[in-house]
Parts: sequence; structure tokens; C-alpha cells
Amino acid sequence: MAESMTETTPRTPGAQPQRAAATQRPGSAAPAGPLSRPPGGGEGDSGTAGVPDGQDAALILDRARAAVDPELRSAIASLPAAMRRIASYHFGWEQADGTPAAGHAGKAIRPALVLTAAAALGGPRAAAGAARAAAVVELVHNFTLLHDDVMDRDATRRHRPTAWTVFGDAGAILVGDALQALALGLLAADPHPAAAAATARLAACVVELCEGQQADTALERRAPEEVALDEVLAMAEAKTGALIGCACAVGALYAGAAGEEVEALDAFGRQAGLAFQLIDDVIGIWGDPGRTGKPAGADLAARKKSLPVVAALTSGTPAAAELAELYARPHQEGEEERAALAVERAGARDWAQSQAADRMARAVHELSRAVPDPAAADGLLALAEFVTRRTS
Amino acid sequence: MAESMTETTPRTPGAQPQRAAATQRPGSAAPAGPLSRPPGGGEGDSGTAGVPDGQDAALILDRARAAVDPELRSAIASLPAAMRRIASYHFGWEQADGTPAAGHAGKAIRPALVLTAAAALGGPRAAAGAARAAAVVELVHNFTLLHDDVMDRDATRRHRPTAWTVFGDAGAILVGDALQALALGLLAADPHPAAAAATARLAACVVELCEGQQADTALERRAPEEVALDEVLAMAEAKTGALIGCACAVGALYAGAAGEEVEALDAFGRQAGLAFQLIDDVIGIWGDPGRTGKPAGADLAARKKSLPVVAALTSGTPAAAELAELYARPHQEGEEERAALAVERAGARDWAQSQAADRMARAVHELSRAVPDPAAADGLLALAEFVTRRTS
Repeated sequence: MAESMTETTPRTPGAQPQRAAATQRPGSAAPAGPLSRPPGGGEGDSGTAGVPDGQDAALILDRARAAVDPELRSAIASLPAAMRRIASYHFGWEQADGTPAAGHAGKAIRPALVLTAAAALGGPRAAAGAARAAAVVELVHNFTLLHDDVMDRDATRRHRPTAWTVFGDAGAILVGDALQALALGLLAADPHPAAAAATARLAACVVELCEGQQADTALERRAPEEVALDEVLAMAEAKTGALIGCACAVGALYAGAAGEEVEALDAFGRQAGLAFQLIDDVIGIWGDPGRTGKPAGADLAARKKSLPVVAALTSGTPAAAELAELYARPHQEGEEERAALAVERAGARDWAQSQAADRMARAVHELSRAVPDPAAADGLLALAEFVTRRTS
Repeated sequence: MAESMTETTPRTPGAQPQRAAATQRPGSAAPAGPLSRPPGGGEGDSGTAGVPDGQDAALILDRARAAVDPELRSAIASLPAAMRRIASYHFGWEQADGTPAAGHAGKAIRPALVLTAAAALGGPRAAAGAARAAAVVELVHNFTLLHDDVMDRDATRRHRPTAWTVFGDAGAILVGDALQALALGLLAADPHPAAAAATARLAACVVELCEGQQADTALERRAPEEVALDEVLAMAEAKTGALIGCACAVGALYAGAAGEEVEALDAFGRQAGLAFQLIDDVIGIWGDPGRTGKPAGADLAARKKSLPVVAALTSGTPAAAELAELYARPHQEGEEERAALAVERAGARDWAQSQAADRMARAVHELSRAVPDPAAADGLLALAEFVTRRTS
């Protein structure tokens, strides 16, 4: 059952000009090459909301939030009162009792990718026309969060109690259902010529997200020694990569891009999404709690079969046997360090980081296929770096 | 808090030419008038699947199943294996272990309404072009059944264990999510010129279905004396009437009908749906177990706040007080008869039956607005009669 990590890692040598980047630590600077961002940034603000041009990721995200927020709020305002209240709580706009809250609805990475992909392939006007599509992708993301939290019994999201803990399972399930309907209905009704294709693509992505969550649930129930590394990689691509890829593809569709460019941008997003998941799993084992709200070792204590854990378990090393033995019995306080050390000694921390760098290199390669002009690709590259930067 | 039934029943005197029908027993023949079906039926089979013409409801339903089944099966076949299996079980095509099952996926009333509405307003060609839309409405219906069963902890559906009892909550929630995505995605991608408007309308209907289920959950949690009759009527319209209305409206859209006709057919479906719910609630109290699989009194034993129960509780009669006292304590075996008698003595059985007849009369009126030609309206009338005939 134990498989070596190099065997289970898909490799396509020769196909990736940026391959040298795979040896870089994730979170370090982008690989030097034609797609690197120029040191001084770009030409500055084009004046159109959500259309970045050589700005850094934080600015791109701020602008995406500003462009998408009115669409998002008007969509939620259209819900019947009882569901509007649960949604407003989930988005961080209201407290559980309905009083206003200061928080905002997350980093808006997916809407930023829609707008930035549209801008990269169609310029500022394409991005300006994609604000509704960007909000729709964020609605879909939040529908899946609401449902995943119910299924996983997760009690905390964005440092607050999850919606189901406050409003019950039925409330969280129904609001998730309603958000999916709002999302696909709004996109289908968008007069933009790409709307029908984007709706069909986003709907297909929802099926893939469900498949990923289904696989995750099934994997968590199986014995650790019965889980193969490519299964977990496929699950992570469906659960995390698919929607990030779809966000980029929807942006490309809204720019009127050709089929090949749309697929390349989808692949860019999928690979960047997998890199993000690998880094997120590293953080779930080794820190850092101050920035993420997640204590170091939390995933190990919860016996989660995250990517580094399965890589370690299937490494065929002595440390794999030690980790398997730990995972076979319930967690005891203070054992996280021993488990983390076993994962590290099995080579899985290095594996995860080089995998993440490898995925980023693939992402950059796909980006160069879709958007050959480095200046135009700049914003998407900045966002991909941002989501994988958390390890530094 | 107690309200008289006549006060809480919305009435619009003078607006309904078929108003005399309100005094008829539900389930008896359709009101005599221009929309009555001619005794000999219509001109016979037009030769196009799903295009009824003066046939009776059973034949219309058979044809609708034949027209929609390939679309439905191909949609489910497109799901990833783990979810396909749960969906195939839910639709009655497979046993829990994956072996084939003989059962079929329910009566297909909603797809039949889509096809029959399209035929009524656009003839056989319009109906033939609406097969995908009809399958999509059935997918939406089944997504809501899967989720409602999880939320209501209902253990039986179509005489079999519900999907969540066999595959777990997560499986049933995810397959429901995937069916909604399949449905709206397929409709959005349909090349028919009405596809975008139909997708937006169906998505808005899903939000209303969620609102109805949310209201139902909330009402069931409240004390009986705190529930008003119009709240339960509004809940039933959202939960049951909305999708039946939407099915008719989607058929009208696919026939290229004008806005007024679309709205009138939606209203026809809503009123027929409410009539169906009233009759279903009567059966939930007084029978008949042989045909429905539901023992008489089951809703009373479960302390359900169905339409006749709330009508009785808010009647201001001595029987209302007796029923309230019964509902205030847990059910004891054999008490169903006493509770049923109290509902009857409060006048709520008669109320439910005259309400159902009243709703049917309104439905017929809306139908005559949308489809003035009695021969063309024939199939829709037959279906509306069919769904409310169960009381006889």
C-alpha cells in the first residue's frame, strides 16, 4: 500500500519551461523569467474599479472587494428575511442578533481572479463587465463553505462561530442552497454574451466541488494505511483547485477569450490552488497560529489526512510506521510535536514545499500560454504568489 | 391569537367566474364550464412524445416520463461515480448496493406540467423542445426532496429508506447540491431562446422553495397557539405551490408565450399546488393508508401543524381548545381518533375541502386567462384534477 512520493507525484518532464522554479521554496520570490513582475510595479491605476495594472496583490484584492461588494450585498438583500439574516451573519456583515458587524467577507481571492483574468485578456472594459460574474463566484464559494461546515461539524470560520452552530443545520443548509440558486440565476440572467457558457462552466465546477468534498469525507473515514497520495491530490484539486481555476476561466470567458486560453487559465488556477492547499496543509502542522488562528499541530491532533500526512504515511520510511502507529490511536495532549517530527523525518515537509513550488511553476507556465505578455499577466501572477505566500 | 377561518382566507370576490366551483367537493368532476374536458377526449395522439391532446392524466404522465427519462438518466450518468450511485438510489433506479431496481422516479407531475404547458401555448413542437427543461424541473424537485429529508429526519420516501439513512447526511446533502447545479447548468446551456429567462425563473423559485422549507421548520418549532393560518398558507404556497407554478411558467416560456400568459400559468400551478397540499393534509389526518402508505392520524401523532390542524386551532371553537390541550402534551397511542374528531368538530375538515375546491376554481380561472381555448387547456386541467383527486 505504501507508495513512494516520487512515484505518486505526476511529472511531465520537458513540458515546463519554468521547471527550475520547482526547487525554490514556496513563498519566496516568483521565479525569475519573462513573467516576473517588474520591480517598480506597473503603470498605476487605470481608474476602473477592479482593473489592476501592475499593482500588488493587496491592492488588487481591495479593488476587487470594492467592485464586487455592491453586487454581493444586493444579491443577499434579495433573499427573504430569515435567510438574509443567516447570510449576513455568515458574510460577517451582521452579528448573530442582527446588529451590524465590522468584519468583511473574507479575502475575495476568487472574485479578484475573475476580474484580473478578464483584465489580462480583455483589458479594463472586460473587467468592468465581469463584476457580477465575480460576485457570483464568491456566492458559490460561500455556499460550499456553509454546507462543508455542516458536514464537517466545523465550529469556527473566520474567527466566528459557524452559521450552523448559531442558526441550526437546516438554516445553514437552506441558505447554502439559496446562495447557489442566487449565483447561477444571476449569472444566467446577465446580458453579457459569455453568460450562458460561464453559467454552464460554473455549474459543472459545483459538481466537481461536491465530488471533492464527497471524496474528502470518504477519505477521512478510511484507515490511514488505505489512503493513496494520488487520491488525496485528486481530492484537493477537486475541492480547492477547481473553483480557483473556474474563477480564472470565467474571467477569460468574459474577456471573449478563445477556448485554449480559457483552458490554460483554468489550469493556471487549478495549479495555483493546489500550491495553496499544500502550503495550507503545512501551516496546519507547523504553524503559524498567530496569523491563521489555527494552533500548530491542530490537523495532527484531529487525525486529518492532509497532503503532508498522507505523503509521510506512504513514504515507506521508518518515520511512516511511527506516524501510522500514532494515527491508529486517539490523540493524547502534547503528542502533536512527536507526530509533526515524524512527518518531517519522513521527508513530507520538504515534499510538500517542493510540490507547492512545482505546482506554482506549472501555474506560471499555463499563465504564459494564456497571457504571453508579461505586463498583462502581472496581476494574476501577483494573486497566485499572494495565496501561496502564507508560509513565509 | 385565534383567527376565524373566513377572515384569514384571502378572498377576491367578483374576480372569479368559476367561483361556484368552490362549493364542490374536491376530487369530484371539474366545474362545468368552457374549460371542462369534452366527454370523449380530444383528437387522439399527435404522435409527439409528451404532447398530450385530450388524453387523460395517466396517459399524459406516462408520456412525460418517456420524454424526460432519457434526459434525466443522461444527467445523472454525468455525475462522478460516488454521487451517481446515491442519485440512482434516490431515483429508484438502483438498490442501495448498486444492483438495478424496478421502481421509477415518482409520478413526474412537474415535468408533465412543463410539457403540457408548452403544448397548450405552443403546440407539439414547443413541447418537443421543452424535454430538457422538463427534466431540469424534476432534478430541482429531487434536490429539494433529498435536502428536506435530511432536515426533517424523514426516514421513508416512496416506500424506501431515504438517501441520508443509507448514505449518510453528507452524501445526501452533496448529491442534492450537485442535482441543483446539474439542473441550472443544463438549462443555462440549452440553446433554446427561452433558456436564460427560464433559468433565472427556476433559480428564483429555488430561493422560494428554501424560504418555504425554512418557514416550515420554524413553524414546527413554535408553540401551536403562536401559529396563524395565513402563515401556514404562505408557507405551503412557497414550499409546494411555487415549483408547480414554475413548471407551468417554464413550459409557457418555452412556448414563447407573453409575460401575462406566463404569469397566469404560474398562478394556475400555484393554486393547483395549494389545492393538492390541502388534500394531502386531509389524507394525513383521515386516510387512506392503503393508497398513500401513511397511516391515518400520522400527522396528528407527529404533532404536525398542517393546514387543517392550524385551521382548527385558530377557529375559536371549543374543539380548538381541546385540540390545543392534546397538542400541548406528547402523543399517546390511540389518541389520533380523538384529535381527528376535534379537528373535524372545529370545522377544519370542511374548511380544508372547500379551500381546496376554492383553490381549484382559482386555478381554472387563471388557466382560462392563459389558455382561452378549452381544447388547448384540456391537458393542464386533467393534470390539476389528477393531483387533487386523491381524496375521493
